Amino acid sequence: MVPRSHPAIFSQKFSLTSALLVFSLVLNGLLLLRPPKHGQLLSDDNWKGMGWTRKAAEEAEAVSLQYQCSGHGYVFVDTFITDDNGSLACECNACYTGLDCSQFLPDCLANANEGDPIFLEPFWIANAEAAATVVPAWYRMSYDVKDGLEISLISPELEKQIRAIHELVGNAVTQGRYIVLGTGSLQLINAAVYSLSPFHAPNSSQVVSASPYYGAFRDQIEMFDSVESVWKGDARAWIKQTESLNSSTFIEFVTSPNNPKGILDESVLTGNNVRAVYDHAYYWPHYTGIPRPADEDVMLFTLSKLTGHAGSRLGWAIVKDYDVYKRMYMYVRVNTFGVSHDTQLRATRLLKAIINGYRQRQPKRLEDGQTNEKHLLFHYAYRVMRSRWQRVERIFSGSDRFSLQSLEPGNCTFFRRVTGPSPAYAWVKCEREEERECAGVFEKGGIIARNGKAFEADRRYVRLSLIKREDNFELLERRLRALVSSSAIVTY
Amino acid sequence: MVPRSHPAIFSQKFSLTSALLVFSLVLNGLLLLRPPKHGQLLSDDNWKGMGWTRKAAEEAEAVSLQYQCSGHGYVFVDTFITDDNGSLACECNACYTGLDCSQFLPDCLANANEGDPIFLEPFWIANAEAAATVVPAWYRMSYDVKDGLEISLISPELEKQIRAIHELVGNAVTQGRYIVLGTGSLQLINAAVYSLSPFHAPNSSQVVSASPYYGAFRDQIEMFDSVESVWKGDARAWIKQTESLNSSTFIEFVTSPNNPKGILDESVLTGNNVRAVYDHAYYWPHYTGIPRPADEDVMLFTLSKLTGHAGSRLGWAIVKDYDVYKRMYMYVRVNTFGVSHDTQLRATRLLKAIINGYRQRQPKRLEDGQTNEKHLLFHYAYRVMRSRWQRVERIFSGSDRFSLQSLEPGNCTFFRRVTGPSPAYAWVKCEREEERECAGVFEKGGIIARNGKAFEADRRYVRLSLIKREDNFELLERRLRALVSSSAIVTY
Repeated sequence: MVPRSHPAIFSQKFSLTSALLVFSLVLNGLLLLRPPKHGQLLSDDNWKGMGWTRKAAEEAEAVSLQYQCSGHGYVFVDTFITDDNGSLACECNACYTGLDCSQFLPDCLANANEGDPIFLEPFWIANAEAAATVVPAWYRMSYDVKDGLEISLISPELEKQIRAIHELVGNAVTQGRYIVLGTGSLQLINAAVYSLSPFHAPNSSQVVSASPYYGAFRDQIEMFDSVESVWKGDARAWIKQTESLNSSTFIEFVTSPNNPKGILDESVLTGNNVRAVYDHAYYWPHYTGIPRPADEDVMLFTLSKLTGHAGSRLGWAIVKDYDVYKRMYMYVRVNTFGVSHDTQLRATRLLKAIINGYRQRQPKRLEDGQTNEKHLLFHYAYRVMRSRWQRVERIFSGSDRFSLQSLEPGNCTFFRRVTGPSPAYAWVKCEREEERECAGVFEKGGIIARNGKAFEADRRYVRLSLIKREDNFELLERRLRALVSSSAIVTY
Repeated sequence: MVPRSHPAIFSQKFSLTSALLVFSLVLNGLLLLRPPKHGQLLSDDNWKGMGWTRKAAEEAEAVSLQYQCSGHGYVFVDTFITDDNGSLACECNACYTGLDCSQFLPDCLANANEGDPIFLEPFWIANAEAAATVVPAWYRMSYDVKDGLEISLISPELEKQIRAIHELVGNAVTQGRYIVLGTGSLQLINAAVYSLSPFHAPNSSQVVSASPYYGAFRDQIEMFDSVESVWKGDARAWIKQTESLNSSTFIEFVTSPNNPKGILDESVLTGNNVRAVYDHAYYWPHYTGIPRPADEDVMLFTLSKLTGHAGSRLGWAIVKDYDVYKRMYMYVRVNTFGVSHDTQLRATRLLKAIINGYRQRQPKRLEDGQTNEKHLLFHYAYRVMRSRWQRVERIFSGSDRFSLQSLEPGNCTFFRRVTGPSPAYAWVKCEREEERECAGVFEKGGIIARNGKAFEADRRYVRLSLIKREDNFELLERRLRALVSSSAIVTY
């Protein structure tokens, strides 16, 4: 400030001195008050002061900002595609090509086969800061984590976050329960069978699941082909076989909500020798109302269908009985010596980001979350899945050629209201007498669907995945619309 | 600058105006010229301009710098130990305790049981910048990597780095060979057995390994208890059983260098039905001279013993035959749907850091690397392991109570010279007639050793791990010295 007690300076001699002083003071003010330079990345100045993270952070930000990939692809620091000059080029989504993924491949089949849950990618891009993971070079090199004097294959902080997310959602009882990690919940399928089968007794356990069921149960039991356990197919075939049910152990896998149908299923077999393993991969508010916390003896969950990170390969079992838990833990230990600690760290960050999103915003009901949706995973995920289901329902609504599974609204204690259906998959039946090979009908229509046979169901059925990327879903939608309105008959 | 053409300003009226001007101009200069603040971390100013990596990088650096843990522990962003006020406290190395790991537990046993390769921690701390990994929240969420129109469970960039590191070291032929990843090489043990066994033929393959062998072979085959394959123990027992060797498939696991003995072993069985699987976990210049590139039909390698990152769970098989490769790939796919992409990214970064370390410095021989050792993994690792072995040899040299395995110097094409032994393990025999339970003798001496029985060897033998942390090794050394000089006899 120019001192007010010396007006003479201004009136008498508004000289060069004073002009310089004013300029200089203004410059000082500007220099002292200059705002942080948001949005200016990668200039040396901006990274000064950073230590060992600098180079890796710089590289990761550079590729994430420099390549837009036309909204149909990505570049990461380990991207392997290069142009003729050796510069990085985009890894394109299915049906897109070109260095920047701008070219759509018109003859490309809409692949609705895999349960690849990448519809959540936009959520994580919007939450990039909260969920980024930095792994120091010397991070948890040991096999074990040392928790005081105990050693463990599970990071205690990850276990805490797993329990916290179930607590937040209210979809599973974890208090007084044991948690064992797997390399995806896939690894825990045979781990559960191993743990529930009588030890070293040939053919002692019969493994079943009610059709339509997730084919991995069968694939895994048949591949390991263990002396103790045998795959016995559709659980319903055994309902009245009292003699069999009493003479050996039955292990029934129940996916609830069901994959492919989306219905909250329960085990169909009862008896002293029946052990149910609940696969709750889809028991999250994205895909179903949550009527109550699940509390079965052995429950499987997976990061894949919760956060969308299928590529990270993390699943967990929540187990009531200590001995079953201990055997599952030993199985994972002998099979793979636990689960990657890099993945455990990343999962911890992702779960924390979800939980913090809710802690900071405290939405009480579904409606409260709508304006903050981009930071509220379950709100975001439900809205996307609900909208996709409505779009699919609309397409099939007028058709007598195809029928869609029928799903009812259900009470959701998490959203504090009844919510409309939002399943992960469409389970479609080809109704025309002559169209017995439904997957073939869809393929003619430019769509890869999963054959009902894979679920030990009729070939008249197919499963369509609704959880893939938006551009994939839009292509599926266009092809479905054309297929439903076409009058061609496809016979096999 | 004060203009020289107006000296009157200074002489006539060195007023408040002028004083203010000078002060203000000096301040201008200081503000414009302030140097970058190296070493000042975490002030808002230093991080400005960074985008989505900022928060995670800041957190990771903060814990790595704020906590020293007395050199006997670590703090990571997912550290779970807190003091009474809820602040983070150190995760202490074995035998240390306290919030800062400064207290040594004098009664603590020196644990030389596990093959936990954390002697390489200091190398990675010294290479923190080159090998840090930043994982964006939306990084490879899909199960697969899309390489053009192909989809794959292995990141092409990781495969390239794996081939490159074998090329650099010259320890395995990879040209024209297939590579399949596993969740640790552990997962690939049964994958190999599955792939080499005749399909769906009961008891068709007999799995063996020459004693002393790595116990995980037996543990895994026995746990999976497959209809097709049976564990048959010591391979030497079958050498002359021509009838058996001709009537069914024998799968022989050969760990070379041998675990525990450190010798470059070869398969002991021969015949048309014998399939050898080479476990080359330790076939790196840290642990042995490398006489030539290995070129067997099925070879297993692991990141664990190469970089020390056991907790990341990454192994790979190098396979000659396409059908065997394809079956191993399918095994991993059905068991765990591949390997965590987070781990694949981190492994890519680690391998690149090692390779770049050598590219930048180009040491031709062992001696050339000594001054740059902290950036040359194999030089660093060999020096540590060589020195530990010499220290162990010195301790046992005068003893008639214990004897150590005898190892010869070997030619190392990588270091371009003959190198002295530097094995991962000491294989010790209790020589006194009455000390039949060698592990018990060591336990009395305050050392946890692995019982020879675990390797299907005599209980007179134990294995001591030499690849753990320096503080662990120093404790082992002290206890060994006391044990060797003690005259007490321990009988069982």
